[in-house]
Amino acid sequence: MKEVAGGITFPKGFKAAGVKAGIKKNGKEDVALVFSTVDATWAGRFTTNKFPAAPVLVSRAALGKVSGRAVIINAGCANACTGEQGMIDAQNTAKQVASLLDINPDAVVVASTGVIGVPLPMEKLSAGVRQAVAELSEFGGEKASQAIMTTDTFVKTCGFVEEIGGVPVRFGGMSKGAGMICPNMATVLGLITTDAAVTPDVLQKALTEAVEISFNRITVDGDMSTNDMLVVLANGMAGNPLVKQLEGPEYEAFAATLKAAALNLAKKVARDGEGATKFIEIEVQGALNMADARKAGMAIANSPLVKTAFFGQDPNWGRILCAAGYSGAELAPEKTTLSIGGVQIVEAGLGAKFDEKELRRAMAEREIKVTINLGVGNVATTVYTCDMSYEYVKINGEYTT
Amino acid sequence: MKEVAGGITFPKGFKAAGVKAGIKKNGKEDVALVFSTVDATWAGRFTTNKFPAAPVLVSRAALGKVSGRAVIINAGCANACTGEQGMIDAQNTAKQVASLLDINPDAVVVASTGVIGVPLPMEKLSAGVRQAVAELSEFGGEKASQAIMTTDTFVKTCGFVEEIGGVPVRFGGMSKGAGMICPNMATVLGLITTDAAVTPDVLQKALTEAVEISFNRITVDGDMSTNDMLVVLANGMAGNPLVKQLEGPEYEAFAATLKAAALNLAKKVARDGEGATKFIEIEVQGALNMADARKAGMAIANSPLVKTAFFGQDPNWGRILCAAGYSGAELAPEKTTLSIGGVQIVEAGLGAKFDEKELRRAMAEREIKVTINLGVGNVATTVYTCDMSYEYVKINGEYTT
Repeated sequence: MKEVAGGITFPKGFKAAGVKAGIKKNGKEDVALVFSTVDATWAGRFTTNKFPAAPVLVSRAALGKVSGRAVIINAGCANACTGEQGMIDAQNTAKQVASLLDINPDAVVVASTGVIGVPLPMEKLSAGVRQAVAELSEFGGEKASQAIMTTDTFVKTCGFVEEIGGVPVRFGGMSKGAGMICPNMATVLGLITTDAAVTPDVLQKALTEAVEISFNRITVDGDMSTNDMLVVLANGMAGNPLVKQLEGPEYEAFAATLKAAALNLAKKVARDGEGATKFIEIEVQGALNMADARKAGMAIANSPLVKTAFFGQDPNWGRILCAAGYSGAELAPEKTTLSIGGVQIVEAGLGAKFDEKELRRAMAEREIKVTINLGVGNVATTVYTCDMSYEYVKINGEYTT
Repeated sequence: MKEVAGGITFPKGFKAAGVKAGIKKNGKEDVALVFSTVDATWAGRFTTNKFPAAPVLVSRAALGKVSGRAVIINAGCANACTGEQGMIDAQNTAKQVASLLDINPDAVVVASTGVIGVPLPMEKLSAGVRQAVAELSEFGGEKASQAIMTTDTFVKTCGFVEEIGGVPVRFGGMSKGAGMICPNMATVLGLITTDAAVTPDVLQKALTEAVEISFNRITVDGDMSTNDMLVVLANGMAGNPLVKQLEGPEYEAFAATLKAAALNLAKKVARDGEGATKFIEIEVQGALNMADARKAGMAIANSPLVKTAFFGQDPNWGRILCAAGYSGAELAPEKTTLSIGGVQIVEAGLGAKFDEKELRRAMAEREIKVTINLGVGNVATTVYTCDMSYEYVKINGEYTT
């Protein structure tokens, strides 16, 4: 597996566009269209929020009816909590894309991100869709990736190449993040394209595995959005022998690369958390089971006390133990160990003797690895997050105004 | 029931002191002692954090062995994650208090609050204990309440009078809060004194009920501390006929006043959340059951996106629905209603027509009532919280340094 510059139009047979439709207040690109020139196998994972946005409902219903062909995404308006009108708007957007591209409306994934509770500005969006279809190109990936940004500070894309059955297969991806990023399904908006030839079963299994170790392991603020979705399109244009077994070397090669792409995007989302100044990787070891490992990691990653301590470069390690302690995960206080940036701080549940200067140096880094061992089993997992700064409060105190 | 100025030495037979032992870095009062001149029935609720602090373990073990007589509290050091030495230090503190007051060590509750992972400075604490015993007085309640503060910005006390069996009975209380305030048992440090004569069973039942609607309904940041405890001492000096029935008018009078005292203290804790500029009351109606009502209220109250929106006076109501949506509580999106400060914003899951100016005026208030109806049942509860400001980040980024 090789990482390359990539992006969603890196795999063969994918075109994209990103255009300015006037939906974002800042006047930047806000409508992204991704198109597979041939039928693609597709799979998706959607938010489990009980107020799913209209595009989530429409796309989830379309999933699996026919092969996938296009993904239309707008930023600036989430089309969530918009009732019947929201459903009609999302369906009409899919229909417009389908009509202009001469494909089935059920082959179109619709996604939205932005403010909740405001109806889609359909006139603007519709003009944007027309323009995006006209501008579709093999070089449109970058613009499309820009168009899905909201409070993101950098474009999130990835690219990978892997040989499957002796044939090089390409993977590309884009995602957006920044706020409302949280556990329990899901992602913000993410799209992965590949020219691999795989069956729907293979894609679904590989996606489920990939989400579990990537988008289900990141959190910025613990808030799960109404709009989260991650969609993968696999159009087969690489010409590799069709992967149809749910195990074996071909499956493993495909699944491992999909995982790498998903993890790459997910980490970029965590790194670009709203107002983030630090990227924090929390490895939980010694857990009784995976659910406990994730619970402990997420409790630490979501704790505002832990996050602000990292922002302040304050080695207040008691907050990390405290969060593990209320996470609900089983742990043995007298066996717990903790290290930050390689500095061993807690041994057997007690403060160890460590060099305070060394710890301060570790806390001053932009990327920090925290390792906690719960001392009750041998299951491990890693959770990715960022710190919480004044900027987070500023960004989120002033979002709609 | 009548609310009065009160404080923990307001009920008959209680003395207190608050002294400077040099444990707090700012040199203020940091050791509080409360003493009942006669044996008191007592009950307590403690943190469920899996890293309970040494004083929690010591006090929990003492609970119920003998009647209660004294509560010793230090601020500035939590004596948590301090292992065997922490247990010995907590036990020795109880023994010293018992020896000086000539009472049983098991009649002493020990509590600590402050930084985690640092051993108690026993020499300073011991000198503070001696001084506190020497200064015990019926007028010491205020000083004691000051001594338990950490990042609190005001002293939290309460007082109530109620007739039980024709006899006026007094209740007093003090608490501290500010950070690490969260659901799921519990409180920060809280102490309620009363001169009511009640049996241990009556006190235990009334305390359980009171905690459920007060300290279990507040949250500042979702972080449950290693040190949370709420203790009630009832010394019987009011001379009312002993309340021994678990129902009936005497029980109700006692339980209702205990609830009022607990709720009064709990709301003050939420109001004084670290960096708070607003007090927010979230009433959840129409829930299927109490667990769901609490889940939805806590998810809204803990959401950093909701909290920062209130700080920014930003009427981004979608975030409130979103938090209810991922809380795990059952709800009917098409029946959900939401109002903020009396302004109806969501009807039947959709944005209602409302006066934007009126909503902005409501968001600008220092106390804001949010009412959400989940539309699936008839259970209601109220959760209390505060907004999240730059100050929260500042306070918690710089706590130990």
